[in-house]
Amino acid sequence: MNDPQNPGLAAMMQNALAERVYNFSPGPATLPAEVLQQAAQEMLSWRGTGMSVMEMSHRGKEFESIHGQALADLRELLQIPKNFRILFMQGGAIGQNAIVPLNLINRVDPKQPKADFVITGTWSVKSEKEARRYGEVNVAATSQDQKYSRIPDAASWNLSDDAAYVHLCTNETIVGVEFQQIPDIGQDQGRIVVADASSHILSRPIDWSRVQVVYGGAQKNIGPAGVTIVIVREDLLGAAHPLCPSAFNWRLVDENNSMYNTPPTYAIYVSGLVFQWLKRQGGVAAIEQRNIAKATALYSFLDQSDFYRNEIDPSCRSRMNVPFFLADESRNEAFLTQARANGLVQLKGHKSVGGMRASIYNAMPLEGVTALIEFMREFERTSA
Amino acid sequence: MNDPQNPGLAAMMQNALAERVYNFSPGPATLPAEVLQQAAQEMLSWRGTGMSVMEMSHRGKEFESIHGQALADLRELLQIPKNFRILFMQGGAIGQNAIVPLNLINRVDPKQPKADFVITGTWSVKSEKEARRYGEVNVAATSQDQKYSRIPDAASWNLSDDAAYVHLCTNETIVGVEFQQIPDIGQDQGRIVVADASSHILSRPIDWSRVQVVYGGAQKNIGPAGVTIVIVREDLLGAAHPLCPSAFNWRLVDENNSMYNTPPTYAIYVSGLVFQWLKRQGGVAAIEQRNIAKATALYSFLDQSDFYRNEIDPSCRSRMNVPFFLADESRNEAFLTQARANGLVQLKGHKSVGGMRASIYNAMPLEGVTALIEFMREFERTSA
Repeated sequence: MNDPQNPGLAAMMQNALAERVYNFSPGPATLPAEVLQQAAQEMLSWRGTGMSVMEMSHRGKEFESIHGQALADLRELLQIPKNFRILFMQGGAIGQNAIVPLNLINRVDPKQPKADFVITGTWSVKSEKEARRYGEVNVAATSQDQKYSRIPDAASWNLSDDAAYVHLCTNETIVGVEFQQIPDIGQDQGRIVVADASSHILSRPIDWSRVQVVYGGAQKNIGPAGVTIVIVREDLLGAAHPLCPSAFNWRLVDENNSMYNTPPTYAIYVSGLVFQWLKRQGGVAAIEQRNIAKATALYSFLDQSDFYRNEIDPSCRSRMNVPFFLADESRNEAFLTQARANGLVQLKGHKSVGGMRASIYNAMPLEGVTALIEFMREFERTSA
Repeated sequence: MNDPQNPGLAAMMQNALAERVYNFSPGPATLPAEVLQQAAQEMLSWRGTGMSVMEMSHRGKEFESIHGQALADLRELLQIPKNFRILFMQGGAIGQNAIVPLNLINRVDPKQPKADFVITGTWSVKSEKEARRYGEVNVAATSQDQKYSRIPDAASWNLSDDAAYVHLCTNETIVGVEFQQIPDIGQDQGRIVVADASSHILSRPIDWSRVQVVYGGAQKNIGPAGVTIVIVREDLLGAAHPLCPSAFNWRLVDENNSMYNTPPTYAIYVSGLVFQWLKRQGGVAAIEQRNIAKATALYSFLDQSDFYRNEIDPSCRSRMNVPFFLADESRNEAFLTQARANGLVQLKGHKSVGGMRASIYNAMPLEGVTALIEFMREFERTSA
C-alpha cells in the first residue's frame, strides 16, 4: 500500500469520510459509515485469516461463524420466536412475489390455490399481479381510489375463508404509507399473514402473533442488495408448488441452512455488520425512537409549510419514505441541484409519483434529516 | 480513522497483505489482492461521490456507469457476439438448474418439453435431476461407469431430434473434468447447447458457434457469490414456461437491462473490478496461457509421484480444479495441517470424492501453485 502510485490509505480514508454525503436513496440506501469502515479494514484479511470474506468457502468454519452470528443477532433484534425460521435467499422481494405463492398458495387446497391481497401502493400491486399467475387472487381491499394516500381500514377488508394467506406490503416505499400495526384479522384462528417488509424491517418491532411470514430485500434497512431475508413460521414450510425451483423452495433452503445453493456470502457479512451496529445503537426499540424523531421532525416541517406538502393521511405516513411536493413544481430541478450542492442527494421522487422523496432509513442520522430541513427552509426563503 | 481505538489503516492494510494466504477454495474462491485493495479504498466514497457502491441507487448514473463498464468489459474479454445478451441474475448455477428449463425446455414443443443431458459429474447430475421436474430428460451420455474420470466421446452421444437443448457442464468442479472444447454436434443445424461454465468461465476463450447459452455463478472465476451470469443468444429469449417467475424470466431480465429486480450491485461492481484486472493481465488468451502453465506444473508433479495421484484421464483433466489423493490416506490430516501452517489453505477434497483438491482459478498466481508443489514435495520427502 506504500506503492508511490497508491496514495496513503489512511489519508485516502480521511478524505473519503470528509466526502460522505447525506444519501436519501430509497434503496440501495445509505449504510452506517462505521460499518463501511470495518468492511474496508477487513477486506484483505478477515480477523487474521489471510482471506477476504468474499474468498471464504461458504462451508468453512470462518463463514459459518459469520453466518451463525448474523442469524443470532437478527433473531435477537427482532425477537423472532423459536418456531420461526430465518432464510437468507436471493432474488429480492420481486423474486419473492413469485416465490411466496410458489411456496404457499397451494397450502389450503392445491386444486384451488387462492390468496387475499390488500393493495396499498405500487409494491402490493406488483405482488398481486405476479401472484395471479399461480392461483386465484382476491383483492380484499384497495386504496387505489384515494391514490394510495391511506391504508383501507381493516374492518372493511373483504377476506376469503379459503385463501392460503393474506398478503400485505407493510411499508410502501414509493407512495410512502406504512402500517403502524398489522391488524388483528383472525390470525389466532389460523389466518396467515404474509408481509413484504422490505423497506421498514428492523425499523420497529414486529408483532409475531399478527404475521406468519415476513420477507424483504436487504437493500434498504439491512445491507447490500443481493440478499433477501425470509422469516417464516416453521409449520408453513413444505407446501411448495410442484414446479417451485428447488433453490427457492423454502423448505429445502431451511433444511440446508440457507446453503442449498451458495449464499451471497459478502452481502450476509455486511448485513451482519449492520446487525452489530444496530445492537450498539440499543437495538430495534431504540432505533424506533430515533426513527420516530426523524419522521416527526420532517413531517412537522412539511405540515407547517405552504411551500412543501405531503399528501398521505397522517395515520399511515411512512417513517421511512417521505414523499413531498413543491407547491411550485417549476422549482423542482433547482431544488435538486441546490440540495446536491449541499451534500443532500437522491431526493428525486419516483417517476410514478413525481416530486421529491426523502428515504430516512435506520442508517440516516438525525443530523441528516436536520440538514435536509434546514436546506428546505432556506430554499423556501430564497424562493419567495 | 485516527481514532485511537482504530489503528492506522495503512499499517493495518500492510499487515493484511502480509497475512494473505494461498487459498485453494473451490468457491467462493481467491480474488486478486489488487482488486480487494481497490474495493477497500473505494468503500466509503466511490470516485468522490461520497457514497459506497453499496449505497448507490441501481438506477443512478453512477451505478449505471459501473454496470455498463462491466458489461462492455465482459463482452470484450469473451468476444461475445452482438446477437448474444448478457444478463446479471441471482440464485447461482443451482438456481439456473430450474431457470434454464423454465426458460428453454418448452421452446420446441410446449406439449412435449424435452432436453438432452450429458452427465460428466456431480454438477451435471444435479442439473439433470432438477430439469426432470419441467419436462422429459434424455441422458444422451454418462461417464458414471467410469466414476466420471473421462468425458464420453461425442460420437457416442445419443442425442434426441426433438430436444429443446443439450445441457453440458463444461467444467466439473468436484470431479475435476473439463471439456477442452465443446464438440460439433450440429449446432449449425440448429442444435442448441447450454453450458454450465461456472467454474471455468473466463479461464479460456469460448467458441460461440458451439454454444448458445453459457451460465455460471460468479464465485469461482469472476467475483463474489451472489451474482449469476447468463449469456444467451437473443433468439432464445421469449420461450419461458407460463409459471416461470418474472424475476427469472430471461426475456424480462433482458428487456430491463438486468434491473427487473434490484441487481446485486456490489457483486457486479467487484466482478467489474475483476474484469478490469483481467484486461490488465492481457485478457483471456493471456490468462489461458498462465492457466495452462499452472495446471501443467501441478499435473506433471502428480504424475511423476508415487505418493500422490490424480485419477482423471489426461484428455479431460480440469485446468481449474485438480483433485488428488495421497497413496497413504492416513496422512490426509497431517497433509492438511502442515499445508495450512505453510499458508496453503482449503485443500480438502469434496466429501463425495475424498482426498484433496486444489482449485487454481485465474486469480491463483503461478507462485501459489509452485508453493503448493514445493510443499507437497517436502511433505512426501518427510513422510518417507
